[in-house]
Amino acid sequence: MAPPVSPLAPEAFPHLPPLAGVRLASFASGLRYKGRADLLLAELAPGTTMAGVYTKSLSCSAPVDWCRKAGAKGKARALVVNSGNANAFTGKAGMEAVAATVASAAQLIGSKETEVFVSSTGTIGVPLPHEKITAALPKVALALKADAWLDAAKAIMTTDTYPKLASRQARIGDGVVTINGIAKGSGMIAPDMATMLAYVFTDAALPAKVLQQLLTKGADKSFNAITVDSDTSTSDTLQLFATGQAKHPKIASASDPKLKEFRAVLDALLLELAHLVVKDGEGATKFVEIRIAGAASAKAAKRIGMAVANSPLIKTAIAGEDANWGRVVMAVGKAGEKADRDRLMIRIGGFDVACNGGAVPDYDETPVARHMKGRNILIEVDVGVGKGKATVWTCDLTHGYIDINGAYRT
Amino acid sequence: MAPPVSPLAPEAFPHLPPLAGVRLASFASGLRYKGRADLLLAELAPGTTMAGVYTKSLSCSAPVDWCRKAGAKGKARALVVNSGNANAFTGKAGMEAVAATVASAAQLIGSKETEVFVSSTGTIGVPLPHEKITAALPKVALALKADAWLDAAKAIMTTDTYPKLASRQARIGDGVVTINGIAKGSGMIAPDMATMLAYVFTDAALPAKVLQQLLTKGADKSFNAITVDSDTSTSDTLQLFATGQAKHPKIASASDPKLKEFRAVLDALLLELAHLVVKDGEGATKFVEIRIAGAASAKAAKRIGMAVANSPLIKTAIAGEDANWGRVVMAVGKAGEKADRDRLMIRIGGFDVACNGGAVPDYDETPVARHMKGRNILIEVDVGVGKGKATVWTCDLTHGYIDINGAYRT
Repeated sequence: MAPPVSPLAPEAFPHLPPLAGVRLASFASGLRYKGRADLLLAELAPGTTMAGVYTKSLSCSAPVDWCRKAGAKGKARALVVNSGNANAFTGKAGMEAVAATVASAAQLIGSKETEVFVSSTGTIGVPLPHEKITAALPKVALALKADAWLDAAKAIMTTDTYPKLASRQARIGDGVVTINGIAKGSGMIAPDMATMLAYVFTDAALPAKVLQQLLTKGADKSFNAITVDSDTSTSDTLQLFATGQAKHPKIASASDPKLKEFRAVLDALLLELAHLVVKDGEGATKFVEIRIAGAASAKAAKRIGMAVANSPLIKTAIAGEDANWGRVVMAVGKAGEKADRDRLMIRIGGFDVACNGGAVPDYDETPVARHMKGRNILIEVDVGVGKGKATVWTCDLTHGYIDINGAYRT
Repeated sequence: MAPPVSPLAPEAFPHLPPLAGVRLASFASGLRYKGRADLLLAELAPGTTMAGVYTKSLSCSAPVDWCRKAGAKGKARALVVNSGNANAFTGKAGMEAVAATVASAAQLIGSKETEVFVSSTGTIGVPLPHEKITAALPKVALALKADAWLDAAKAIMTTDTYPKLASRQARIGDGVVTINGIAKGSGMIAPDMATMLAYVFTDAALPAKVLQQLLTKGADKSFNAITVDSDTSTSDTLQLFATGQAKHPKIASASDPKLKEFRAVLDALLLELAHLVVKDGEGATKFVEIRIAGAASAKAAKRIGMAVANSPLIKTAIAGEDANWGRVVMAVGKAGEKADRDRLMIRIGGFDVACNGGAVPDYDETPVARHMKGRNILIEVDVGVGKGKATVWTCDLTHGYIDINGAYRT
């Protein structure tokens, strides 16, 4: 039985507009799941540029190896994603599966092999029956259309309980461009990156080098600032494709002031997708924002934030609606970054709970307890040593997580 | 309702023999728990030497601050431990509570204040009502006796489901000495150190400097090689007291060959106590040993081992009796230490499951699945790059953990 849809799911999914230069199709190839699409093909217009950010795992999957290599050229014509099998730790067979898929898609689209990007997500260590993919691709190619974003988002789901989509528009000079994004991920989520796949498409015309700078920076404050369970996947992939079909002034550098709005909108869209991933965290019932201030540096602040966000004791306390700020003190202490115990300030839901090395005088837990009963939890910590700041996001740790992950393969 | 006793608890508790120079008493001071002892006093003979290893948390508790300072002198006459309140993040009141407790015990025993060691374990951030301790101490002192080890181990319990004790004898030259130890801890357990208190007593006569070297080294392969939930407590304390009442050749250096047996026996006792802590891990149903080999160094091996041991996805898979070795690949990859994905070998329960970048040929899961149904799980990984080895221990992550920690304070 599938777990119920996350209580943190959005009430409705946005309808993503067609995006010039992108056609999509999904298909039930029977790789693993029965009766649902598990294969996505995206066809990209000639001239499409691309950038990618990938897992830092040292045991990354064969598709990640391929994307890193092919991505160096910064050109894309197709994206093939399957769910249900990660094609990770599959040895030589893994590389062969990638090669066969890439060759098949390149032939269909009429592109170079290095212009085909592949991702796989699902179980690790099981050879990918790529002949199912190559057999399906010609059929999938016939079904390509511009208006298929929801189906695309659904095809890449694994333990996700809802599809993740976002769309925005931005002005570049006197031109208006669209950015559409889809993502998947609900467990094995920690930065650098997560079992997280996200694909962002725009009709803007931007050199690959510019895209890479925008994406790397944007990922840092979005996909690399979320965690569900501290586990880092072998397969994490975030890619940005620009089809160049929109009309706008030419951009040659990421620091071009005309890119300011585009950059802000892209960052917001990346954050929206990242939040959707956390809100579908396995078993999640609460969405938790953790703001760290007063750290020695932004990097130190992020590390402290992640120590708080990954603490099982804090995550279970949040699940139990217990404003157990003592555990926040513990997590700050274990982060290994400079913090002044006797100047530490903790705020929960906007209410001061601790300062100067102890509970606030006449601490009234009533409003804090009320905040803990909500869906959105805010924890703010000032560690009292500097000006470094960071915000990270996570979810609570519940019985649902154990249910889902104690029985994933069986 | 108290959670049931861990299924990994020993069938019987050892009877610890009296140890010359140590008298113990416990008492129900009413600090937090009703109707159970929550205060331990140990009186140590004049001339007792001591050593300590403490949490690396930067937000450590007031008692830890005190023990570090007083311990520099290496002399001990009394130990006072309370359970139910950690006296951590309690600001100036925390130091005052320590000072009052120390003064009271020193007066009772007739010792210097720096010869009194205190520990507190329980909730963080709640002022310790130390007047209950100082009021109780004179009564406790009247009850001191040599044969009270089981009661002592019980008095320091918090969420522990069973008391933890161990005893051994060792020869130093032609003399025989006894080592008795008690410990507590079941959550917030990760190295450096855990919400873990452990006190080891011996009647050997050893200089404090020698004790410190033995303890630091022994802790590395025992208490600093276990993890329940990756959370590091503000209060972790491991102390070793030597009363000097036994007769044996004089020892001046930790490298004296006459100490060889004592060192081995002490290490074994520390490991036994550390294992007892893991086996009482909150919600634990499986005891997991993780052996890493082939790493770049012993330190790298330990870091990889801890990445495996702390992975929620691996711990939930073990709870679900699922030999999901793909998640072991993931954890090795995220550890950040050198590993050769294509030479990685994984063995579960002694059976090869993966080698050379993929599942073993004709992998038969039957015996592995049988192993996963047992209480003791063994995971062996060779990461294929060097000669570094390490062994770490953990437990599974179950619904019990969520139950206990989602409702701890309420």
